[in-house]
Amino acid sequence: MAVYTEVPDDALDAFVGQYDIGDVVSCKGIAEGVENSNYLLQTERGAYILTLYEKRVDPGDLPFFLGLMNHLAARGLACPTPIAGRDGETLRSLCDRPAAIVSFLSGVWHGRPRPDHCAALGEAMAEMHLKGADFSIRRPNSLSVKGWRPLFDSIRDRANEITPDLTPVVEAELDYLDTHWPVDLPVGLIHADLFPDNVFFLGGRSESTPERVSGLIDFYFACTDLLAYDIAICLNAWCFEADGAFNATKARYLLGGYRRLRPLSDSELAALPVLARGAAMRFLLTRSYDWLNTPAGALVKRKDPMEYLHKLRFHQNIAGPGGYGIE
Amino acid sequence: MAVYTEVPDDALDAFVGQYDIGDVVSCKGIAEGVENSNYLLQTERGAYILTLYEKRVDPGDLPFFLGLMNHLAARGLACPTPIAGRDGETLRSLCDRPAAIVSFLSGVWHGRPRPDHCAALGEAMAEMHLKGADFSIRRPNSLSVKGWRPLFDSIRDRANEITPDLTPVVEAELDYLDTHWPVDLPVGLIHADLFPDNVFFLGGRSESTPERVSGLIDFYFACTDLLAYDIAICLNAWCFEADGAFNATKARYLLGGYRRLRPLSDSELAALPVLARGAAMRFLLTRSYDWLNTPAGALVKRKDPMEYLHKLRFHQNIAGPGGYGIE
Repeated sequence: MAVYTEVPDDALDAFVGQYDIGDVVSCKGIAEGVENSNYLLQTERGAYILTLYEKRVDPGDLPFFLGLMNHLAARGLACPTPIAGRDGETLRSLCDRPAAIVSFLSGVWHGRPRPDHCAALGEAMAEMHLKGADFSIRRPNSLSVKGWRPLFDSIRDRANEITPDLTPVVEAELDYLDTHWPVDLPVGLIHADLFPDNVFFLGGRSESTPERVSGLIDFYFACTDLLAYDIAICLNAWCFEADGAFNATKARYLLGGYRRLRPLSDSELAALPVLARGAAMRFLLTRSYDWLNTPAGALVKRKDPMEYLHKLRFHQNIAGPGGYGIE
Repeated sequence: MAVYTEVPDDALDAFVGQYDIGDVVSCKGIAEGVENSNYLLQTERGAYILTLYEKRVDPGDLPFFLGLMNHLAARGLACPTPIAGRDGETLRSLCDRPAAIVSFLSGVWHGRPRPDHCAALGEAMAEMHLKGADFSIRRPNSLSVKGWRPLFDSIRDRANEITPDLTPVVEAELDYLDTHWPVDLPVGLIHADLFPDNVFFLGGRSESTPERVSGLIDFYFACTDLLAYDIAICLNAWCFEADGAFNATKARYLLGGYRRLRPLSDSELAALPVLARGAAMRFLLTRSYDWLNTPAGALVKRKDPMEYLHKLRFHQNIAGPGGYGIE
């Protein structure tokens, strides 16, 4: 993890004492999530995740994130449920940081998802979109099309350290995206970071118990944006092989799973290539920023921005949704 | 943690499939221990710790470590029990590393232990010494008196980066320790790294359930050496306050707890000051080595060697065991 706060045992006891979850039996820092300090907390009543929000999360956004998880969990989506203390509050303070306890979700994530995992992801994402539709708080996506140019401007001076042609490629693409970004598509609550490590699965060890999504986690990029943009992020995150090849079967399964629960309009389907280009741009830029601003050998494992330049180029050559395996 | 191997889910499933512990329900890397990659593994049967041994552990020592934990757990000591697979083996391979599954121990460790924690530690350490007495494998302590001079030689060129007078202080002290190190004290199995984060406690929330040691963990420095040297390591690790002050009450409780189970001979008591000087030297040297060989901002949180130079100086001014609060 990027940051890691050590919680003194007396502070932990006092904190947990504000909840009706019994005494602490064990509390271990876990290497999950790069933005916050996360602990697997076991009490007499069960297992929970304790999160201390570090400085990369805006405290003003926490009521949105916790309210959203509460909203989705109440509607039966498999996601962490914020636990309220005896005072009814889910957000409080620990070690001078905002902190919350959420329910623990069983499951493992798949580093190399198969097509059936992609189908299950698609279904779970559609379920989340449907169940998030009546969530009343809105949060603009600061990492969407309007945010990309300022983000690139902040690293332009050193962009050639990533690759010499990054600046011309990004500038031309930003011009294209500004002009072609869709405006009339359905908008709603999106996760915006639904990478494989944020999707847990259980079951599937035998024919009779098919593998199913047991949880979606890490809602700390969730926001209000085009629903189909969430799909585009997943096409990038789930459907490329380690060698860079696009796996159209996985894309077809992902889209098929999604459409079983929420049909996509012709406009949404037609917009997939430009949305996928935008999604590639978003991660190309944030990874480039982190690459240039994280010292080598630091706590964060830097993710290669070039992976997303490659994905961007793939989508630039896609003529229509047929390129993603759908007719 | 220092090193962190990511285990692909299919490799994990295949690994766990060699045990009779049910299917994997969850597996999370935990930020515990600096030498190895540790995971809190939950299966249908319960909770376990999965450890991948990274390069700082000599694979040749693993049968000793696992055999020792098995020996102690079989005698009722609260410590991790290595779990055997269906083939009877506890040590196998995962992600090209030696790997083992041990039982999970509930409990929390105390960052600022109180005197009663020190007493409980003393008792648990004596119990470990008694139960380890008939463990048949021996492992010399490479980090005892004979190992210190070569270790210092390897950092002598840069010792002044820690503090200008480190070299003269260490050289004079090494001469003293060579001459005065006790030779006729009882020898046996020692833990050699019984810092507060390796001792779990449970209970104590009410008068009727006193807090007790629920587990000793991390036996990866365990070896065959003077039993009283283990006590000396704990005097340093448990009885100094954060401001550097020695807390003689904690020392008295620690020694009192120990002596309730295993009486100390007059020779052992008389040797405590020199053993405590040696224990301070051992951690001064290894922390200095790590300090000089770990890049700033790297994954390991460097521990300050100066803390142990301060402790060494404290013990140099102790005339006899009375300095540790015992008559």
